[in-house]
Amino acid sequence: MITAKRNGEADMVVHRQAFSSGNVLADLPATPGTNELIQVLASHAGNGVKIERIVSHGHATPLYEWYDQTRHEWVMVVQGEAIIAFDNERDDLHLRAGDYVDIPAHCRHRVAWTLPDTDTVWLAVFY
Amino acid sequence: MITAKRNGEADMVVHRQAFSSGNVLADLPATPGTNELIQVLASHAGNGVKIERIVSHGHATPLYEWYDQTRHEWVMVVQGEAIIAFDNERDDLHLRAGDYVDIPAHCRHRVAWTLPDTDTVWLAVFY
Repeated sequence: MITAKRNGEADMVVHRQAFSSGNVLADLPATPGTNELIQVLASHAGNGVKIERIVSHGHATPLYEWYDQTRHEWVMVVQGEAIIAFDNERDDLHLRAGDYVDIPAHCRHRVAWTLPDTDTVWLAVFY
Repeated sequence: MITAKRNGEADMVVHRQAFSSGNVLADLPATPGTNELIQVLASHAGNGVKIERIVSHGHATPLYEWYDQTRHEWVMVVQGEAIIAFDNERDDLHLRAGDYVDIPAHCRHRVAWTLPDTDTVWLAVFY
């Protein structure tokens, strides 16, 4: 559990904004939605870096659709399993808990598969 | 397991550099060293963002020493347990697997304690 001393309402608000904490495996959705659940855990207004938690539950990128991102993406599977496919000669990656991959900007990729029966939790850093 | 097709030596080198992958819990040190083990998993030459794996094994920041960093640090405990202390009115944070905290730049903090008998694996994003 994470605790933080609060001295008063105004102080509390400032600290909550500047100093967020939590658990990447907490508060998973009770039932899977139509789309993946994406939550921003941290971001930097100046350089645009973003850290996200993504929860998949059998979700995959539609066939023939690709992510083509302006930023590098370092992504790790915290829980569950997933397969990432790439639009080049590279083989698919099967990621299990703790596995990460650093996907360069504009490297076209898609999520080909995630475990159908449980939540797959990703941690993604767009930098 | 992570696999990637290689078409030749020159191709392989380029891809290895641009496209690193692994597991944050793999290749832990056989015996703990004098200092924490710090490994850069990804970095961006342009904006200086860095993603590190840190392995502690009973290590702590020396008493009365503080980290005072120019960058924000989003840090998560992947395995193990740790306590982070702050140089202000904020209470210590006891972090267990999956717990994260976003430490603003120049927020003075130290690692007060990590589990003495096992590896505590951190994932840190300096952004």
